[in-house]
Amino acid sequence: MANEFKNKAITSRDEDFAQWYTDLCKKAELMDYSDVKGFIIYRPYGYAIWEQIQSYLDKEFKRTGHQNVYMPSVIPESLFDKEKAHVEGFAPETLIATIGGGEEIKDRLIIRPTSECLFTDHYKNIINSYRDLPKLYNQWCSVVRWEKTTRPFLRGAEFLWQEGHTMHASEDEAREETIKMLNIYDQLGKDLLAIPFVKGKKTEKEKFAGALETYSIEALMHDGKGLQCGTSHYFGNEFSKAFGVQYIDKDGKLKNPHQTSWGVSTRLIGGIIMVHGDDNGLVLPPYVAPIQVVIVPIQMQKEGVAGKALEIKKLLENKNIRVKVDLSDKTPGWKFSEYEVKGVPIRIEVGPRDLANNVVTISKRNDGKKETYSIDGIENTVVGLLEKIHKEMYQKALDNLIENTKEAHSLEEIEAIVNKGGYAKVMWCGDEECENKVKELYQATSRCMPFEQIPIDDKCAICGKKAKYLILFAKAY
Amino acid sequence: MANEFKNKAITSRDEDFAQWYTDLCKKAELMDYSDVKGFIIYRPYGYAIWEQIQSYLDKEFKRTGHQNVYMPSVIPESLFDKEKAHVEGFAPETLIATIGGGEEIKDRLIIRPTSECLFTDHYKNIINSYRDLPKLYNQWCSVVRWEKTTRPFLRGAEFLWQEGHTMHASEDEAREETIKMLNIYDQLGKDLLAIPFVKGKKTEKEKFAGALETYSIEALMHDGKGLQCGTSHYFGNEFSKAFGVQYIDKDGKLKNPHQTSWGVSTRLIGGIIMVHGDDNGLVLPPYVAPIQVVIVPIQMQKEGVAGKALEIKKLLENKNIRVKVDLSDKTPGWKFSEYEVKGVPIRIEVGPRDLANNVVTISKRNDGKKETYSIDGIENTVVGLLEKIHKEMYQKALDNLIENTKEAHSLEEIEAIVNKGGYAKVMWCGDEECENKVKELYQATSRCMPFEQIPIDDKCAICGKKAKYLILFAKAY
Repeated sequence: MANEFKNKAITSRDEDFAQWYTDLCKKAELMDYSDVKGFIIYRPYGYAIWEQIQSYLDKEFKRTGHQNVYMPSVIPESLFDKEKAHVEGFAPETLIATIGGGEEIKDRLIIRPTSECLFTDHYKNIINSYRDLPKLYNQWCSVVRWEKTTRPFLRGAEFLWQEGHTMHASEDEAREETIKMLNIYDQLGKDLLAIPFVKGKKTEKEKFAGALETYSIEALMHDGKGLQCGTSHYFGNEFSKAFGVQYIDKDGKLKNPHQTSWGVSTRLIGGIIMVHGDDNGLVLPPYVAPIQVVIVPIQMQKEGVAGKALEIKKLLENKNIRVKVDLSDKTPGWKFSEYEVKGVPIRIEVGPRDLANNVVTISKRNDGKKETYSIDGIENTVVGLLEKIHKEMYQKALDNLIENTKEAHSLEEIEAIVNKGGYAKVMWCGDEECENKVKELYQATSRCMPFEQIPIDDKCAICGKKAKYLILFAKAY
Repeated sequence: MANEFKNKAITSRDEDFAQWYTDLCKKAELMDYSDVKGFIIYRPYGYAIWEQIQSYLDKEFKRTGHQNVYMPSVIPESLFDKEKAHVEGFAPETLIATIGGGEEIKDRLIIRPTSECLFTDHYKNIINSYRDLPKLYNQWCSVVRWEKTTRPFLRGAEFLWQEGHTMHASEDEAREETIKMLNIYDQLGKDLLAIPFVKGKKTEKEKFAGALETYSIEALMHDGKGLQCGTSHYFGNEFSKAFGVQYIDKDGKLKNPHQTSWGVSTRLIGGIIMVHGDDNGLVLPPYVAPIQVVIVPIQMQKEGVAGKALEIKKLLENKNIRVKVDLSDKTPGWKFSEYEVKGVPIRIEVGPRDLANNVVTISKRNDGKKETYSIDGIENTVVGLLEKIHKEMYQKALDNLIENTKEAHSLEEIEAIVNKGGYAKVMWCGDEECENKVKELYQATSRCMPFEQIPIDDKCAICGKKAKYLILFAKAY
């Protein structure tokens, strides 16, 4: 593949993964830095990926009965302070507004880092009877967390996300919701991102501030580090109690409803980059790609070439494929390189020689394979290829996950696995001391206790006591 | 129409328009107040109206070549200070964050009231050549303006909006963009909101801080007050110069590009309420209504009633109509009232007596007319009725606009018109002193100089000097 042009500027992935990542974010024009550390600019190409994710999830949320709302972007400090565990978790990284219209604000305003407080406080006003339940709300917005170390998409002072917040009459129903939404995130990986997730439960140490239980989807990046890609929390009625949310149940008794929240963010874009990208740039899974097919005319000045390119575009668009024809005066080589960096799944070359034979040349971005196809039925050919590419990319990511998830029965084995890169699959006694030990010794954290709990030993790999859970450790972003 | 239930709680529109408005916002469950003044909660029904507006405009923006981006929600004070006229206009109403992660922030952060600074600063980094132009960006977000007097949707400390920001090589192209986007807003009124707008140019006094020219769409509310519903600004290259945005033109010379910005906000929801609403609640134009048809079963326990209601729902949904069947155990009277308050355009009653005759009873929310229609072809009947309602509502609003736009040739005539409620159509010398006089005397502001400049006099109605422009005055929100 042609990488003699600007791809040269991309650092090799195996040489320096971190630099390679930053190069891709910039060269593929996904983002730019702003003047404020950690507040990035989502450029059109990066934002368009987010729009694809939004569109998929918003349909799923609505299909499952959720409604969108918008809550204030600020939380009065007095309100934020109501749930103890929650405030302790978030207080150190808050951005606080203290001046409004030139005057000091008495009850200072926290720029929302997450909105449990706001939703619960509102629910207090609108939930009175069991008839008002469940409440299934979601919002699309940005949140602010004043992080010290920031990285585009992975850890930002501001990032885009959705946060679902629901209230239920029964514990069972709330627990069901928690898992239902986790499964929707998992399906997003399968359908759109071509990323296989490990679903599981977080440890007490790693759970969300204020939650009783946190579940997550975890992915393995190309460099063997883990990335938490989404979480779903069960709160019990702790927030309900703290905020005084009560309803009269069928039995005439006053009760506190049971609560959940769940979210994914633009961090998923970081996941897409690090699972699929290569030395030539992004490799976008077809169904999340803003441009699924780019058509590059060869010898554009020759009669019929540009016209045929536009004709093929129309055929593909009729199949709801997102197509771009690049008719600019840049060289084909420049264009090949440009759309390679941007990870466009399929490139179609339309040139005079091929046209004489009623064929085009199609290249697949994921493996660089190039083949000639008839123009007749090209729209069905491309539909088929997009599906093929998606499957190949998912399978490759799954192979990588399986290959790099290895059993460890001792601290030494854990060390070897997480240092090489990958998930160490470990039996654990459930003691936080053991969890801390792995973190201190190897800078690897517990990712989750997978739903599939198939014991591989009866002793804790860290302390040797009786094992309770199967757990994954990894270095992580 | 049944208003013996909760509509009683709505203040009469003619008695107290302001209270009627607030009642509707709350009773129709469009919004709720939060703990922070001016920061409202957009409840599902209110947010769903905004989603309809977003969906329409986002398609139009993309059709005309615009791309969505997301800029930081904060602006460093030092950056905000770069364009003088702009900062003077906005500084008094800024919310400022001064503490991050427990520490004082040196370059304090303004929560964005509008994003000209951020866009222009970013454009500086990505525009180098005429080949990089035009740049046609838009973002959907919330903005914060620390207003003293706030009202749901009309004037908020925080509101939702879109802001387009574009850069062009030539002045002509930028001017064309300014008008093109104004026309898209105008069309939104015709297609979706059933609101006729007056398009025109703002005076120097009323234009946007930092703009060379501001154009607006203006609507007349039921109480005869005006509402500015959207604006489009031409900036020349003032911001470009202040921020150092330069490109090399075809002729090899360094130039500053020409800029526009344009926006509409959730204020449009306030417009919908005040143009169309009545004493029984909201009256939503069909194409912006989250629920276009509600089906209320009568004697639901009777065999076949609920089933038929669901059957009709399916028929309508196949025509992409947004339908709700209310199968709750509340009385039909309660339901009638509920969906009246919520302004659902069409109500279909499905009862056993009608079913025996293969008919249903359909009520139009806009005029309360009730008729019987055959169930055969019900989906086409409803499609036709939705269109009819839209036209009737637009025409009614247009009649109101025409009826209450009156010529004034003297201060006394201006006074009479704006006090009664309506637009005073006036010839004006162009002098700010005259504009100020009307404001001071009658608390009426200049709304715009309509594009249709058909002189009605040769003297200024205020000072008697030679008239230059036709202008509209009104009391306004």
